[in-house]
Amino acid sequence: MNASTRCVLPSDAPADGRAVRRRAIKPLQKGQQTRCAIVEAALGLATQIGLEGLSIGALAALMHMSKSGVFAHFGSREELQVSVVREYHVRFEAEVFYPALSAPRGLPRLRALFDNWMQRTSVEIDSGCIYISGAIEFEERAGPVREALAASVNAWLAALRHAVGLAVAQGHLDAATDGEQMAFEMHALILALHYEARFLRHHDALRRTRSAFEGLVQRHANAAFVRVDALASA
Amino acid sequence: MNASTRCVLPSDAPADGRAVRRRAIKPLQKGQQTRCAIVEAALGLATQIGLEGLSIGALAALMHMSKSGVFAHFGSREELQVSVVREYHVRFEAEVFYPALSAPRGLPRLRALFDNWMQRTSVEIDSGCIYISGAIEFEERAGPVREALAASVNAWLAALRHAVGLAVAQGHLDAATDGEQMAFEMHALILALHYEARFLRHHDALRRTRSAFEGLVQRHANAAFVRVDALASA
Repeated sequence: MNASTRCVLPSDAPADGRAVRRRAIKPLQKGQQTRCAIVEAALGLATQIGLEGLSIGALAALMHMSKSGVFAHFGSREELQVSVVREYHVRFEAEVFYPALSAPRGLPRLRALFDNWMQRTSVEIDSGCIYISGAIEFEERAGPVREALAASVNAWLAALRHAVGLAVAQGHLDAATDGEQMAFEMHALILALHYEARFLRHHDALRRTRSAFEGLVQRHANAAFVRVDALASA
Repeated sequence: MNASTRCVLPSDAPADGRAVRRRAIKPLQKGQQTRCAIVEAALGLATQIGLEGLSIGALAALMHMSKSGVFAHFGSREELQVSVVREYHVRFEAEVFYPALSAPRGLPRLRALFDNWMQRTSVEIDSGCIYISGAIEFEERAGPVREALAASVNAWLAALRHAVGLAVAQGHLDAATDGEQMAFEMHALILALHYEARFLRHHDALRRTRSAFEGLVQRHANAAFVRVDALASA
């Protein structure tokens, strides 16, 4: 995954004080600051009304800028949309991926990745996930916005598969575990959490997601490791 | 589930000759015929561009009617959208729910329900599912369209839970099986199938869905039934 950040500002640090990776602090040029502020506003708008709802005009009004002022930073609406997808990806990594790296390699890290993902999906119950809404908006449209979205999601699924592979290598999961299948099933649970909590407002969706993930881990757990783990915690 | 049909016409009968429930055939009034034709066109449009993309104007153009002609059948855009949701639900039931009732009660019927659902989701890979796109469009909006959508999906999830309960009652699934949890996990798999096949274009999504469902069934299978089943098919 690409660790470079673009516009992650201090205000994005999670309240619990987890470290957020950002580029070495150096003052942004004025132009970059404005561009970041526009992307920030656009991201807020996109999580509420969708990427397709973004328009240079609406953004100019929101930023108290002229349309040509916004155009000076983004040559087109499409370029603005792609920048929003990239910024969303950076924040997703900062909240879900990087904090999990401090957990020990193997099953603990895989659990941390899923926990952070669940956590973010729960938070988004009040704001929206552009990986999910964007997939609907762009499923039938070719072009750079769709490509940027699909590349982000594919990179994340690859990171999950890699984490499953490490858990196998560490002897925590059974050698026969299919990383692709496990990542697919984890993705399925998050999609259902989002759908059932956000749209159907089923209050037990988070508990169901947790329970299903636990079942998934248990099915693939290396029996020898489970015994050692039980002894260690006894 | 509500078995009444509204506009299911002979042309909706599946090509493989499965029976489609429809009301006792009697000639529709001219006004009803027109209404049905409008709903049919609106449903086609909604599966491509979303329920929110529907407008009386676009529909009037598509139907070679005046806007006031369409308005005569649907007092508002919202009423049209609700009619589309109901029609979608009727077709979903006709393709997914009713054909499964011919499978023996218990695990065979549960399998048939999931198979038909997977089948429909695969077909929709070229057209779109308004239960999924509509959930995104209406997640933050109150009102009758959202209510109609959520009621349809909840009715379907209740039917799945009921089918799990019957499989437990028949001794096919373990008595400890939690129907709500199993329905949640089946829903999760269909959402992932839709996302990964349709948006990410992963060609193995159907195989992964099938494999995960098989795992789900095996985990909950009543050990005694599995032995009897194996003997019977030996």
